[in-house]
Amino acid sequence: MHPLDTAIALKPITKGSYLAHTSAAYANMVGPFGGVTSALLLNAVMQHEDLLGEPIVLTVNYAAPIADGEIVVEAQPVRTNRSTQHWLMQATQNGELVSFATAVTAIRRETWSALEATPPQNVPEPLSLSRMETANKPIWTQCYDMRYMDGDMPGEAGGAEQDDSYSCLWVRDEPPRALDFPALSAICDSYFPRIFIRRQRRVAIGTVSLTTYFHADNALLAAQGEQFLLATAKALNFRKGYFDQSAEVWSADRQLLASTHQMVYFRD
Amino acid sequence: MHPLDTAIALKPITKGSYLAHTSAAYANMVGPFGGVTSALLLNAVMQHEDLLGEPIVLTVNYAAPIADGEIVVEAQPVRTNRSTQHWLMQATQNGELVSFATAVTAIRRETWSALEATPPQNVPEPLSLSRMETANKPIWTQCYDMRYMDGDMPGEAGGAEQDDSYSCLWVRDEPPRALDFPALSAICDSYFPRIFIRRQRRVAIGTVSLTTYFHADNALLAAQGEQFLLATAKALNFRKGYFDQSAEVWSADRQLLASTHQMVYFRD
Repeated sequence: MHPLDTAIALKPITKGSYLAHTSAAYANMVGPFGGVTSALLLNAVMQHEDLLGEPIVLTVNYAAPIADGEIVVEAQPVRTNRSTQHWLMQATQNGELVSFATAVTAIRRETWSALEATPPQNVPEPLSLSRMETANKPIWTQCYDMRYMDGDMPGEAGGAEQDDSYSCLWVRDEPPRALDFPALSAICDSYFPRIFIRRQRRVAIGTVSLTTYFHADNALLAAQGEQFLLATAKALNFRKGYFDQSAEVWSADRQLLASTHQMVYFRD
Repeated sequence: MHPLDTAIALKPITKGSYLAHTSAAYANMVGPFGGVTSALLLNAVMQHEDLLGEPIVLTVNYAAPIADGEIVVEAQPVRTNRSTQHWLMQATQNGELVSFATAVTAIRRETWSALEATPPQNVPEPLSLSRMETANKPIWTQCYDMRYMDGDMPGEAGGAEQDDSYSCLWVRDEPPRALDFPALSAICDSYFPRIFIRRQRRVAIGTVSLTTYFHADNALLAAQGEQFLLATAKALNFRKGYFDQSAEVWSADRQLLASTHQMVYFRD
């Protein structure tokens, strides 16, 4: 069983209610890597017998630290229309809310389509680059093969402040795993905090809210399989304890699979 | 009373529960303008006696059409930490969920701060531009003074398809109104659908989810007052019935007040 599948495994309790357990493989500085919490909450939708269509939007709010141990995960379709379905999900520990989320799923149809964003240009092949070292980084980074072209996480020694927080990298699950919606949602949180890149040092941070827009459907995810994803991220603003991040995840053949945004608390 | 204040007025029923009413001034093609629904749900947080801090993130999911008439609005703080608070809000009509939302509010602190995004350059003053005509447009457009520099809504006759969906405009409430968080959240949905700009024709659309990141605090909003806001928007991708929009709202003195993202259904 792939470590991600272990980390997002759900044991049914009642309809829409499941028991999960934190996974040591995806441990972060405090509690689990936020991407795996996002994948866990989305998985509760994917496993629900009343699911209509495929994920279009996922918003996860990180309300409190998650302790090592059991998590009760619940997903409820709060409104089902003809082609769209709205979801409310929550994760609790000992009856206390730790994360909650909303999602929209929908049946997609063939329509006029057009890619407007431009993927990064003149990008070297992933295997021509070195894999990022994971020593002195959170445990969860070992669950990804990241190959940075720009904006890598600064070393513990730090460096001179930069004018921008842009990152560009190739990333895939380690060991390789066929891409699906939960895995893609986790990868959408696998960027290092923009303030680390900008300031070239590590500060205390915590994502408060993460929204992911899925441009891909199951067919595009299947075409991607286990290949490396091309990923970019930037911030717009850092102000009075909070900064944002906007990021894009591209397939190996330059289809936009997801765009993702988050607001992050920082202490400085 | 300003029409926006009428449209988002909340009559308390019980703690966190209010009665509201749709407003003819903000009518859209079907139901109310989505921005005013966003402002209404946020107002339920702003009016709550347990509110901690100022809005940081707001996500509104549009679950079903809203009929003209009464709306029950509820806001509940689902987790309160030392400096952050997580909210769940919902709007119902006749007991049926029509919209729901999540928000994070927080007490901001002085920290290292840096603006990374670049505002539009070489922008003419708003009063040197013509106000957009509102004839043959939805009623709610009369509640804004919009002065487009780029990417205006196409006329009913349509035009040749464009390569991009970028828009840039000056916008403020009409009549003028001092900016606050509900008004800013409404303006974040006041852009015309990106597919109208891209295709230069009007098609059936509906926003399914709208997320707004507030970079401004009360002091920045007070400094803005009733001045025009500088607003930009673009799409990344249009695919199989859904497209995204990413937008920025800048103050008159080029502070980033909000960044906002949405996923929109379209029929083609």
